[in-house]
Amino acid sequence: MNGVLITFEGPDASGKTTQIRLLEEMLRGMGLQPLLTREPGGTPIGERIREILLDRSSQEMTPMTEMLLYAASRAQHVEQVIRPALEAGRIVISDRFTDSSIAYQGYGRELGETVARINAIATGGLEPDLTFLLMTTPESMRKRIAEEQQDRMEAEQDAFHEKVLRGFLEVHRQHPERIERIDGTQTIEAIAARIREKALAIIRSRYEI
Amino acid sequence: MNGVLITFEGPDASGKTTQIRLLEEMLRGMGLQPLLTREPGGTPIGERIREILLDRSSQEMTPMTEMLLYAASRAQHVEQVIRPALEAGRIVISDRFTDSSIAYQGYGRELGETVARINAIATGGLEPDLTFLLMTTPESMRKRIAEEQQDRMEAEQDAFHEKVLRGFLEVHRQHPERIERIDGTQTIEAIAARIREKALAIIRSRYEI
Repeated sequence: MNGVLITFEGPDASGKTTQIRLLEEMLRGMGLQPLLTREPGGTPIGERIREILLDRSSQEMTPMTEMLLYAASRAQHVEQVIRPALEAGRIVISDRFTDSSIAYQGYGRELGETVARINAIATGGLEPDLTFLLMTTPESMRKRIAEEQQDRMEAEQDAFHEKVLRGFLEVHRQHPERIERIDGTQTIEAIAARIREKALAIIRSRYEI
Repeated sequence: MNGVLITFEGPDASGKTTQIRLLEEMLRGMGLQPLLTREPGGTPIGERIREILLDRSSQEMTPMTEMLLYAASRAQHVEQVIRPALEAGRIVISDRFTDSSIAYQGYGRELGETVARINAIATGGLEPDLTFLLMTTPESMRKRIAEEQQDRMEAEQDAFHEKVLRGFLEVHRQHPERIERIDGTQTIEAIAARIREKALAIIRSRYEI
């Protein structure tokens, strides 16, 4: 595969969306055509799975079901969108990928190692070339989402979100070469500068531009 | 767990529904209260997953996504319905279970061993006490479902359904002690008599009635 897969990870409200847009703008300014996508979702079937996952009426959903639904959505996303784009040599930027499942379902829901095993099968072993992990604090997360607008995952207890944050730190510890951990409480400009530098390094090495 | 889990397997239109109803009637006549359920589905979340799976507009669904969605529905079904009923000592009769995934996704979609591995995780290792496999021929299957009423799985090519039939035979070969293979082209009464005999044997051994 000739393309580059860049993923953005981190808790909700850590500023991923803003930074993805800034990175896209910069790449377009260089004449590149990055493909932006997101999880859960990213395909028509994935969007239908996303609806079940985030619906607050799905309260009785078990952790195992939740993890398998994310994996199902990801399998469709990889095969229908990400892999064809990478094979066509494109830069793919995904808002969340496997690391989110490891943090949310592996650590948050305490499903452990199973999550990485199932996801390796679901993705056919596809891993990002570069991951930006935007970290924030439990306090700042809570401030940024009004309760009535929260989806099923966002509406979880603080203890859950704290386990998820620890999960992201653990994922970073295991893959320091792939994952750039960034303090999401810095200014938008400071974060964007760091992302620009790291993204350009990998893109230049691949595309010889 | 004190209950008994009985599953009915086989291709579509092999007569499972009729036989499940007859077995239920007999058990009720004995004063027992069997719980009837089905896959995919069996829970509100499972029914929503079932809609995505069987919708003929889901044509682009990949085999891996399909297999993970069945596993997600099954995980919910086991934890929310089957396991609590078994723990309460009930007889649970399920129209399809893991063997269907092995036949349809493992053999029909050619995903192989992965299907059993993922399903062992999804079900927490739960296996039926007794399985009735109602076999039929590809020809008789085709006769019984009008094309316009077929769901996405039923609408698959003949070659797919033939691989599924071979898959069911292979599952039986691997678990002859658990699976009763029955020729579904016999009369309803002959099939019901065989099912009654085998079901009563296991129920009597468990409940001492």
